[in-house]
Amino acid sequence: MVQDKMRVRAEDAVIVDASALREQVAAVFVARGTPEEHARIVAEILVTADFRGVDSHGALNTVRYVTDIDTGNYTVPQTLEVVSETPSTAVIDNGNGFGFVGAHRAMSMAIEKAREVGIGMVTLRRGHHIGMAAYYPMMALEHDMIGMCVTNSTPHMRPVGGLGARVGTNPIAFAAPAGRERAFVLDMATTTVANGKIRVAQRLGLPLPEGWAATTEDGTPVTEPPEKSADWWTLEPLGGSLVLGGHKGYGLGVMVDILAGLLSGGGFSRELPTGHNQAWFMAIDIARFRPVEEFKAHMDAMIADLHSTPAAPGSDRVLVAGDPEAEVLERRSREGIPLQRSLVEEIRAKAQELGAPVLI
Amino acid sequence: MVQDKMRVRAEDAVIVDASALREQVAAVFVARGTPEEHARIVAEILVTADFRGVDSHGALNTVRYVTDIDTGNYTVPQTLEVVSETPSTAVIDNGNGFGFVGAHRAMSMAIEKAREVGIGMVTLRRGHHIGMAAYYPMMALEHDMIGMCVTNSTPHMRPVGGLGARVGTNPIAFAAPAGRERAFVLDMATTTVANGKIRVAQRLGLPLPEGWAATTEDGTPVTEPPEKSADWWTLEPLGGSLVLGGHKGYGLGVMVDILAGLLSGGGFSRELPTGHNQAWFMAIDIARFRPVEEFKAHMDAMIADLHSTPAAPGSDRVLVAGDPEAEVLERRSREGIPLQRSLVEEIRAKAQELGAPVLI
Repeated sequence: MVQDKMRVRAEDAVIVDASALREQVAAVFVARGTPEEHARIVAEILVTADFRGVDSHGALNTVRYVTDIDTGNYTVPQTLEVVSETPSTAVIDNGNGFGFVGAHRAMSMAIEKAREVGIGMVTLRRGHHIGMAAYYPMMALEHDMIGMCVTNSTPHMRPVGGLGARVGTNPIAFAAPAGRERAFVLDMATTTVANGKIRVAQRLGLPLPEGWAATTEDGTPVTEPPEKSADWWTLEPLGGSLVLGGHKGYGLGVMVDILAGLLSGGGFSRELPTGHNQAWFMAIDIARFRPVEEFKAHMDAMIADLHSTPAAPGSDRVLVAGDPEAEVLERRSREGIPLQRSLVEEIRAKAQELGAPVLI
Repeated sequence: MVQDKMRVRAEDAVIVDASALREQVAAVFVARGTPEEHARIVAEILVTADFRGVDSHGALNTVRYVTDIDTGNYTVPQTLEVVSETPSTAVIDNGNGFGFVGAHRAMSMAIEKAREVGIGMVTLRRGHHIGMAAYYPMMALEHDMIGMCVTNSTPHMRPVGGLGARVGTNPIAFAAPAGRERAFVLDMATTTVANGKIRVAQRLGLPLPEGWAATTEDGTPVTEPPEKSADWWTLEPLGGSLVLGGHKGYGLGVMVDILAGLLSGGGFSRELPTGHNQAWFMAIDIARFRPVEEFKAHMDAMIADLHSTPAAPGSDRVLVAGDPEAEVLERRSREGIPLQRSLVEEIRAKAQELGAPVLI
């Protein structure tokens, strides 16, 4: 299927050492005025995405973010301001800087609050791209907590029965720890596919399956990968048509706008300038509900049961959310991270231009 | 479309006064040994479903629940035990009785906790059917809170790439208050359709659209409405195939099992005996994040913007989650509730059999 064809081809790839890549990305941002602490957070989250095979949210974006600093879209250095706070809640103003930095702070605060009072919930406004949304709920795992994060974006999704983009791809990410088994890690756009998949299809010259995108004019399926962010096409909500539950994907997308955009005060999808994102984070201390070891053993039993499902024709096995990324992570931990040669050259050139060391 | 044909036909309907129906349903349960306070809670939630046009979760179920008491499936009178509690969290044991009663208590506690500490989260174990899941998040609205509820069920959904039921229809319900506009109320199974839709199609003799159900043998679409709860067919996850995001519906279903089944300790879908359900409730005090009037005005702006979306061909307008039910509620508040004549007769006969007054 089309997703399988979307990875970088071996003959175009350079294998990069993960820690060198992390240092390289951080060095580029530092050279462009980012405080080292912030640059290291952004680099860590980007390279974790590459490690997990979520290439669209990885080091691929390094030069783009430098451009965002150049154009003034991102304020660097940024200030993080805690606008309001209670023992269980907080609202953070991201100071128009890297979304990653505010998101990392917000999830850290949610975890601290959950440790103190059981549940922590923090919203983030005046933010930008937070990268791979799963990163933040996964931060909760080592604390024996369940983590959750949602983030909104400028409109890409058409509502069911409507024409034109009104709601963002508005992803939901959720992670829960297991014992022997891998953690459960769900990270899903509320559209049929995230925008990144369309861009990858375009880069690779692959047609789109019907049900991914529709024209704004009359909702006809778009099968030739379209240019980015044009007004004439939109993504379909998860579920697609009303008869197959498209109102559910649309409803989940609006739920994300309520939590991330409205509870933060930062704005819903249609209010956001291009490249702006608001977000919402939650941590749940499992031990307040039941002994953690019991919970993890129960997770193991459930995950093993799901893995034991007989495979359907055309499928070799049943996966659980987080499995595909964990398998890539295991492989790339041994073999290094394959990056497109042109991407490596682009990052090297940017490092040289900014007077940063070339480390990859 | 098929959903539109699923309502009771006018010529088969008896118009019933809502308060008479509420009294009648409560009287039947009281006559069968249910404490009056519990019977009134169950009746209120069932009739609210009828009011909102969610007929599958309404008074239709009255006689079925009496049978559950008769067979010992439901323990009546039930005891509710708070197994553990902190200022922000609680776990309630439902005492194997009406799920409605424990769910009502759990959401009430979540609201009280949110008032005290900002967020309240309560799980429910040893429960049964909680009815229309949206009822509980909607309880939060009058307190200027956001409400959320998820509940698991015995397996109906096949995982993407698998055969056979592993996960319940596991609905997610979410409500947030608005100002001038109607509240946002999402209530969605994580399967393409809830099981009730299959049963209604069967009763009305309508074919199923492809994408609702599949055979256990090889995943072929099932288009003749099948008998209830047979092993040879399963529901499809929201999204359907992997290429259209079926892993997302499947992932959301498992997320519900983690919150409702594992965080309560009551068990995930495949562990549950038939008719058992565990649940999870959350209330969020909006005022901890921003002034409530600001939030509601922002909700109004977002909802108005969504309503202003140009309609697609074949659609007359764009709705927001909760609109269809609110419109039925407005009509039925004026006109009364249409119940199938055979259903009214069934409830009357049960009342007479139990020595309860006949009120409808």
